[in-house]
Amino acid sequence: MTLQPATPAFLDTLRDRLPAAAFREAEERHLTEPRGRFRGTGLLLAPSSTEEVAAILRACAAARVPVVPHGGGTGLVGGQVVAEGIAPVILSLARMDRVRAVHPSENVMVAEAGVILAEAQAAAARAGRLFPLSLASEGSARIGGLLATNAGGTQVIRYGNARALCLGVEAVTAQGEIWHGLSRLRKDNAGYDLRDLLIGSEGTLGIITAAALRLVQPPAGVGVALLAVPSPAAALDLLGLAQGRFGDAVQGFELMGRMGFDFLEETGLGASPLAPRPDWSVLVELGLPEGLDPQAALERLFEEGSERGFVADGVLAASEAQAAALWDLRERIPEANRRIGSVSSHDISLPLSEIAPFIPEAEAALAALGPFRVNCFGHLGDGNLHFNVFARRGVDRAAHDALRGRVKELVHDLVHARGGSVAAEHGVGRLKVADLERYGDPVKLQMMRAVKAALDPQGLLNPGAVLRAS
Amino acid sequence: MTLQPATPAFLDTLRDRLPAAAFREAEERHLTEPRGRFRGTGLLLAPSSTEEVAAILRACAAARVPVVPHGGGTGLVGGQVVAEGIAPVILSLARMDRVRAVHPSENVMVAEAGVILAEAQAAAARAGRLFPLSLASEGSARIGGLLATNAGGTQVIRYGNARALCLGVEAVTAQGEIWHGLSRLRKDNAGYDLRDLLIGSEGTLGIITAAALRLVQPPAGVGVALLAVPSPAAALDLLGLAQGRFGDAVQGFELMGRMGFDFLEETGLGASPLAPRPDWSVLVELGLPEGLDPQAALERLFEEGSERGFVADGVLAASEAQAAALWDLRERIPEANRRIGSVSSHDISLPLSEIAPFIPEAEAALAALGPFRVNCFGHLGDGNLHFNVFARRGVDRAAHDALRGRVKELVHDLVHARGGSVAAEHGVGRLKVADLERYGDPVKLQMMRAVKAALDPQGLLNPGAVLRAS
Repeated sequence: MTLQPATPAFLDTLRDRLPAAAFREAEERHLTEPRGRFRGTGLLLAPSSTEEVAAILRACAAARVPVVPHGGGTGLVGGQVVAEGIAPVILSLARMDRVRAVHPSENVMVAEAGVILAEAQAAAARAGRLFPLSLASEGSARIGGLLATNAGGTQVIRYGNARALCLGVEAVTAQGEIWHGLSRLRKDNAGYDLRDLLIGSEGTLGIITAAALRLVQPPAGVGVALLAVPSPAAALDLLGLAQGRFGDAVQGFELMGRMGFDFLEETGLGASPLAPRPDWSVLVELGLPEGLDPQAALERLFEEGSERGFVADGVLAASEAQAAALWDLRERIPEANRRIGSVSSHDISLPLSEIAPFIPEAEAALAALGPFRVNCFGHLGDGNLHFNVFARRGVDRAAHDALRGRVKELVHDLVHARGGSVAAEHGVGRLKVADLERYGDPVKLQMMRAVKAALDPQGLLNPGAVLRAS
Repeated sequence: MTLQPATPAFLDTLRDRLPAAAFREAEERHLTEPRGRFRGTGLLLAPSSTEEVAAILRACAAARVPVVPHGGGTGLVGGQVVAEGIAPVILSLARMDRVRAVHPSENVMVAEAGVILAEAQAAAARAGRLFPLSLASEGSARIGGLLATNAGGTQVIRYGNARALCLGVEAVTAQGEIWHGLSRLRKDNAGYDLRDLLIGSEGTLGIITAAALRLVQPPAGVGVALLAVPSPAAALDLLGLAQGRFGDAVQGFELMGRMGFDFLEETGLGASPLAPRPDWSVLVELGLPEGLDPQAALERLFEEGSERGFVADGVLAASEAQAAALWDLRERIPEANRRIGSVSSHDISLPLSEIAPFIPEAEAALAALGPFRVNCFGHLGDGNLHFNVFARRGVDRAAHDALRGRVKELVHDLVHARGGSVAAEHGVGRLKVADLERYGDPVKLQMMRAVKAALDPQGLLNPGAVLRAS
């Protein structure tokens, strides 16, 4: 059952089954990933149809050649590059980039795996609808990868992760067979939920080639405010207040620590609209039904929040442009982080009531380890924090190379002890395989391995991602 | 690998591992199901803890004795009774009926499998929260069964199926191991989504013993109206209009054909508040944020719907009692159906844009087959219809016994041809195993069998449900 490397000779065996356009040289972007931790190997194939994907998988299965699916390449955990072991076929879905259908009366869109998120959003908008998945990499990330990693983003609090926006998938199995599962149904209990099994499996159980996606009617009015809060605990109280008043109309609730604004100023990427820079602030977005004025609603939230001590200061966007500018500040924080360069980044989630105690606990534990700076920000409504650790200003992060493993373990141990996850929205990829082994429930891991062996008995699909290659 | 029947001698081997209270006589309700199509066999065990469930499963695995989990016994497709083959252990979860925790600040509740839905709703309400799963059998159905069947109901349009309300599960495997997966996290991409694999698998892949459930803050105001519409197509136009105005605040949208009111009057269970009885009507419920008056919102919807020709008549509930009375009428339709006795009932779903053409098509095809009455009603917003076929008034349904199979096949074939599902919210159970084989995607079925064999290699768990016992 030994895997065989993808070679030019193997690709040649496919020339009678695939058009010439499917054969392309792998580019640098197919072999690297944004954080620079992994460098991939392999030979590229870029099919333009589901049938071509199936033909490739059948050939790979027969020759025992592994396959790594490749979408926009924006993943942050190395799931898109096979860095060790046998050179795979890099299966780019980028040429499968058609929006096959938009059904506005059903609030459904059918898009191929290679459709870029921003294009899916635009196709929905042209039909008067909203595809409510939104994240920093939406200009490059593609539908297939977004589903394979169950991507999150800034509107999860209202609309859920990518999983919640998918009604059906078309997928190719490790044996090269096509599952025609592009259901546009909102209720279907005919058999096991294999759609959700594939979603989030990071290309290790099957290759998603297209999906039926859920659209919504856009809210009648949208308002945005940046509110300074005394503490993360107050931010959570404010969230409860907002949801009590407006329910799921609370569609964005992003926590930002002061370090985020410090980093924006340090890198010249932006400045806090509140002075002095608040220790903690939240970016609140309301998407309200007809008849309610978002500005007035946010003003009321500000006033009532102030009375109760949950809000200390704030700025309400008076126009769409101002709202976009507030979001833009929030979206630039990851870029500021990249420019400064983290010692260790942590994509964690916690039960909501564990967040307030976790933050000072983790900061104190890190302080005992070394002179670090922490930029803690994220999707508070989902309990999802990006808790990223940096060297002090003027100190190169390389000075802390020896401590990186210890920093990560310290943060992850504290998260795990509070019932949290160390792989909240970015997935496991290759970066967190050992973390999953360390923190994952052993019975769940055993079930995962059994499912993997059942659906991909030769271990062809993205070997080494999520689960250690056997 | 032959299975062995559950015998008193086998149960005796468990007496040193289980307290005496776990040994009970099976009652009639453990051996029957509401539609009377299947009669079960087996011996009852009623554990009161997850550890006891695990001990039973370990013993069953060692002795190759099959197990059928039993919750409230309200399932409509025979998933809860093993009617053929080897007598199983009937594993009642009814004694595991504790709400383990309510976390209002997190909008989370942890409940054991045996908690009755109405009690879960009440526990949430006591904490000022809503557990938004609501269906006719909520006074008997239990959390474990609701999750095992991914139950639907009347608020799916806003809050999703049972699946969407579950953050984590604790479950016991076919080998008798405990998966501690009671995550209270809203984002967790640490590994495969086995939670959703177990949800909807009808007890064939593992036994859910407890779940972390999603709560919401109740909407500030709720309004209900019964609106007569000229046609199902107009009802869908009205749905689009309502969602454009109020988004996900549209939390109920039930279609009712005139036959529903005819049946209520025929059985003495109720009467149409609109005269003459409308051919088609919809029960609309809005759950609005603070600042919007539900009455006024429904009046506006009525007026604008009337102007556009989507609404012909209507009654708006002026009080909570009136709202409850309208819902009560809707909820009595299944009881009226039962009293009249259907020739064949169909729990189907369709892409929304297929509903309007499907209904007259199916009615015409049935009329060609015989003199039937059709009661078509259901959760229009989800594309989920209960399309139930009855004999004409005064004719015993037994007169059509010979046609039953043909009626079902006719309806299901038309549903399938339009991309619909013949197992929308009730599941597959034993009733629809052959339907799944007939209409299911063959590659998906193959993957399902592989997953079943991987997680339950001896075929112990609810043999014959969902998939034919091998």
